[in-house]
Amino acid sequence: MKGNVIVGQSGGPTAVINSSLAGVIKAARKLGAGKVYGMHHGIEGFLKEDIIDLDDYITCSADLSLLKRTPSAFLGSCRYKLPQIEGNEEVYDKMFEIMEKYNIEYFLYIGGNDSMDTIKMLSDYAAKKDKPQKFMGVPKTIDNDLPLTDHTPGYGSAAKYIATSMKEIIRDNESFGASKPTVCIVEIMGRHAGWLTAAAALSKDVDCDGPDLIYLPEVPFDVDDFLEKVKDLAAKKSSVVIAVSEGINLADGRFVCELGGSSDFVDAFGHKQLSGCASYLANRVTEATGLKSRAIEFSTLQRCATHMASRTDIDEAYNVGYIACEAAMNGDTGMMVIIQVNGREPYLVSYNKYDIHEIANVEKKVPHDWIINDGTYVSEKYLEYARPLIIGTILPYYSAGIPRHLTLKNKK
Amino acid sequence: MKGNVIVGQSGGPTAVINSSLAGVIKAARKLGAGKVYGMHHGIEGFLKEDIIDLDDYITCSADLSLLKRTPSAFLGSCRYKLPQIEGNEEVYDKMFEIMEKYNIEYFLYIGGNDSMDTIKMLSDYAAKKDKPQKFMGVPKTIDNDLPLTDHTPGYGSAAKYIATSMKEIIRDNESFGASKPTVCIVEIMGRHAGWLTAAAALSKDVDCDGPDLIYLPEVPFDVDDFLEKVKDLAAKKSSVVIAVSEGINLADGRFVCELGGSSDFVDAFGHKQLSGCASYLANRVTEATGLKSRAIEFSTLQRCATHMASRTDIDEAYNVGYIACEAAMNGDTGMMVIIQVNGREPYLVSYNKYDIHEIANVEKKVPHDWIINDGTYVSEKYLEYARPLIIGTILPYYSAGIPRHLTLKNKK
Repeated sequence: MKGNVIVGQSGGPTAVINSSLAGVIKAARKLGAGKVYGMHHGIEGFLKEDIIDLDDYITCSADLSLLKRTPSAFLGSCRYKLPQIEGNEEVYDKMFEIMEKYNIEYFLYIGGNDSMDTIKMLSDYAAKKDKPQKFMGVPKTIDNDLPLTDHTPGYGSAAKYIATSMKEIIRDNESFGASKPTVCIVEIMGRHAGWLTAAAALSKDVDCDGPDLIYLPEVPFDVDDFLEKVKDLAAKKSSVVIAVSEGINLADGRFVCELGGSSDFVDAFGHKQLSGCASYLANRVTEATGLKSRAIEFSTLQRCATHMASRTDIDEAYNVGYIACEAAMNGDTGMMVIIQVNGREPYLVSYNKYDIHEIANVEKKVPHDWIINDGTYVSEKYLEYARPLIIGTILPYYSAGIPRHLTLKNKK
Repeated sequence: MKGNVIVGQSGGPTAVINSSLAGVIKAARKLGAGKVYGMHHGIEGFLKEDIIDLDDYITCSADLSLLKRTPSAFLGSCRYKLPQIEGNEEVYDKMFEIMEKYNIEYFLYIGGNDSMDTIKMLSDYAAKKDKPQKFMGVPKTIDNDLPLTDHTPGYGSAAKYIATSMKEIIRDNESFGASKPTVCIVEIMGRHAGWLTAAAALSKDVDCDGPDLIYLPEVPFDVDDFLEKVKDLAAKKSSVVIAVSEGINLADGRFVCELGGSSDFVDAFGHKQLSGCASYLANRVTEATGLKSRAIEFSTLQRCATHMASRTDIDEAYNVGYIACEAAMNGDTGMMVIIQVNGREPYLVSYNKYDIHEIANVEKKVPHDWIINDGTYVSEKYLEYARPLIIGTILPYYSAGIPRHLTLKNKK
């Protein structure tokens, strides 16, 4: 019997982060690991020895199937940043003591940039102290900003939700026609990278014009130029729908949402919490044109709408979890599993592992040559990139008319 | 061959208003009507003779099936109020001239309170002038505020979307646990009636606590009392989620959203446009407790998310359209089709017709004895009422990963 596995989830949840958890659990069991433990609220919980025995919750394949259909972090998430090793060795010593106490040989962490940093520090410390435990990162973020991997699990489902909801909003916004011209501004997540906002373009097809303008944070935003473009559009059509990233910013670096006097809340990683740019711009549009305007924020729905998950994304999330656990059990450490796309039509992927040192804290942005029309749309290159990622559906298990979830309260 | 049918859609769109249109078209064809025309943007378009020949768009049962899966008003909507008959007879004369020109014998109008008023005026005028045309109303509103009918098509799908999204938001809000206690306030449509906000309670089940508090516009709202309740909850649990109606108002009648200084935009019917109470309350919560808070508005998504439509609602919407057309062709006029529920478990319905004079411009609200816990929740009676309405799913037709719609651009 091999040693035990522990798995944690970290950072903002996604629609498919639990599919990666399902993949880890399945691999651990199939490949003969001992127990599979979960960290309750990531390494923050781990440091408090808040550890869950997953045998109490997931006993059969139906549980795994329901886990895949459950949004948000089943184990609970955290935004806890490990201190640098130098001068904080007691924190690391404590973590390894807990691992030894629970006979944990394989440590899997599902997360984004900050979480890959955790894997890097732990594997560096293990190397330095000659510890036997293996540490593998499982990529996860709706933001799609992890480098080296073609795309990140979580992105496809968020993109599918955004494209679907954008299409439904465009349909709604068109309904009154010329009798009530409305400018609708939809705010989409993405602090520095415009991947999520770009997904609004996926709504365009023979039955939908798509949004009229798409603004990403990769390109400086000019409010006056924006208002001119809206005026021109409103002169031509009665329904104008615009997608903006929450992170759009002026040439001087100020966020557009700051212009409206919104709050300065800063999270535990020092990231400024953004919201309100759609609402600010909608007010500016009405002032400048007299037109009715509406601001819509997709808000947390874009990261938790598992009822709209992409089958491709669910499967890939599961696979990266499975492969990471398998790699750890085969002796790999200090690496993240990545997705390689060998062909986009037909869509062919393979998985690989990459040194975590090349990944941690690098943000991948939308390439500048994929942003077209004077910074107001994304090109066919982006669409070719993203289209395969939103294909396929996974039906929720319905109970009393709404999707059923697996939770830590459903103890066997 | 019987005469021609015309059908229009009016008011705010819903996820299933096109199912009613499909029902009208099917009945007209099955029962041997001549042509089936559509009003482009309701009676506002009709008055301009902006009339669509539906044979150009809907030629087979696959078109009808896709129409049922298309959100918003396929024909285009309007918010046009007919003037009173006295002193405005030329408007009515013009309408009847157009009907005669197109050999229209049956006039179907799908809409809410304001639209039923249109059917009342036209049938009154026809009676007064001894005109042969028949006028039937097809109920539609997500607000569920039409009297006499047990519930209104459009409500069940909005309720299903609200319950599903609320559950996904609760799951997301729980993910960080005690390390990031968050108060999330979700704003739901409903100016005077709390039916939509009440639907947030449908998220509660063995796998979900449901929202902690639910505030409807039927009960006066007290900001200080609300803040006390939030403080008490936050002392006990790390995730607090609250559902508020956009129309919650103080004992003196002022809307809560007005307290934050939001805009005073008034629509064509003189209804004040509301939004922003969640954002106002979230700010007050953070001021009063120091806790992180988040405001989410479901916005227009709750009325256009056909991808989450209730099968029960889709079928009932289709049936009221079918029965209204059938009734008109059998000689009924000046009536609205209503849904009668003969049993909630098992769920058994029948359809009836009701004199439009008893319906127009009466708003049905949530009964006071269904609102419990000091005005902060809804009772089991509400849940028994609403549960059957959200049962069943209708899968979208997917193309390139997102739902396909039927539009006026898809001309055959």
